[in-house]
Amino acid sequence: MLSKNRIKYINSLKIKKYRQLHEAFIVEGAKSVLELLESEFETEFVLTTPDFQQKYSSILSDNKTLVETVTAKELEGLGLFQTNDSCLAVAKTKDNVFLSADMREYALILDDIRDPGNLGTIIRIADWYGIKKIICSSDTTDVYNPKVIAASKGSFTRVNLFYTNLPEFLAQHAKNRNLLGAFLDGKSIYDHPFSDEGGYVVMGNESNGIGAEAEAFITHRITIPRVGEAESLNVGIATAVMLDNMRRVIG
Amino acid sequence: MLSKNRIKYINSLKIKKYRQLHEAFIVEGAKSVLELLESEFETEFVLTTPDFQQKYSSILSDNKTLVETVTAKELEGLGLFQTNDSCLAVAKTKDNVFLSADMREYALILDDIRDPGNLGTIIRIADWYGIKKIICSSDTTDVYNPKVIAASKGSFTRVNLFYTNLPEFLAQHAKNRNLLGAFLDGKSIYDHPFSDEGGYVVMGNESNGIGAEAEAFITHRITIPRVGEAESLNVGIATAVMLDNMRRVIG
Repeated sequence: MLSKNRIKYINSLKIKKYRQLHEAFIVEGAKSVLELLESEFETEFVLTTPDFQQKYSSILSDNKTLVETVTAKELEGLGLFQTNDSCLAVAKTKDNVFLSADMREYALILDDIRDPGNLGTIIRIADWYGIKKIICSSDTTDVYNPKVIAASKGSFTRVNLFYTNLPEFLAQHAKNRNLLGAFLDGKSIYDHPFSDEGGYVVMGNESNGIGAEAEAFITHRITIPRVGEAESLNVGIATAVMLDNMRRVIG
Repeated sequence: MLSKNRIKYINSLKIKKYRQLHEAFIVEGAKSVLELLESEFETEFVLTTPDFQQKYSSILSDNKTLVETVTAKELEGLGLFQTNDSCLAVAKTKDNVFLSADMREYALILDDIRDPGNLGTIIRIADWYGIKKIICSSDTTDVYNPKVIAASKGSFTRVNLFYTNLPEFLAQHAKNRNLLGAFLDGKSIYDHPFSDEGGYVVMGNESNGIGAEAEAFITHRITIPRVGEAESLNVGIATAVMLDNMRRVIG
């Protein structure tokens, strides 16, 4: 039987302020929890249904993680997602550690991405295309938001994020690097000779695109050519198309 | 003041059975309603806040559409989306008219896409990449679901969908055509010589991919190369990457 304190604690972690206070976040659903347990994250505890516990008993006991058995009904009441009928974990957040693109490496820069679903999708796409580092402007949505974690489908365990004052980061760490920005009026991405020197792919806010301060550092304005009439592409879609074209050229 | 009958009618259109009975569907939000009014769809009526009505009075009066002024609060209670504070329209659905790819044309085939957000996103992507026709298996989610309409961001007015028994369609209409299927174990899309003869790009179900019946008709098994470790890409993302590679080659 779940204690009231534990229920209260889990519910508090839906709010950024309490995630920062407790340095902890929620992971929901079988796939994400299993990836969590196999990652470097420290897991505080796992709540599981008897079915899930039995199925994954070896992974769960390997981890020395506190496991509490709960009913599917108790789980449903706790998480954000009605459909979670297997497990929920609480893990410790990681420190916000400085990241930058090494030579020959491409990293992503996100300027004010607000929608948690978009951020989670971008993390999953980065993981697919072998991008290990994402630099986020301070106003980009919190990676530990449960909706971000869910949308990343476990990829949050493999891609690192660093939140920073973006204009300062760019001024200090992006000199002499390639900065590719996605705009509606740039050069066709099909013609861009992606350099194997690496650099940054910069994606901007859902409504306003890349902000003026970050735009000043862009070295290559790039566009995904449009054949039809849709006004824009979603930022997650545009990120995937940018990275796909990059990988096609540099492998 | 909204009549009870009208409220009841609008609410009924959130359910597929009643959309089919009334041959009508809901369109929410300023951008989508404006695109609706400029499209070939027949609009039954528009509910607007006084602000929106004033701002777009010329478009609204041009259309000979019944316009009823409502409060923002009345609107909020009606639609699916809390954030809609401008307008909501009800329009007549179109007949399910046969479609197939002309010679030199690429069309999309969707085999059992279930998530309304995914279908709406795919329609928007098709519109960006100049795809005018989408052939849907009978079990693909209903295009007139309000969540599909919302996610398509107005592109539902420009892309046509045809729901059909997919194996029968393929047997009768896809002979001697290129059928490109997205699989996890196909040939790299970067090496595929997209033919200017056109054909079909086939995308499968979110969990199970392309079904066995449709798979039998695929002429080219194609993969989006993965560099990192994510297990899969969302079907909307994969559709965009497929179509982007197609346009890069054939324009």
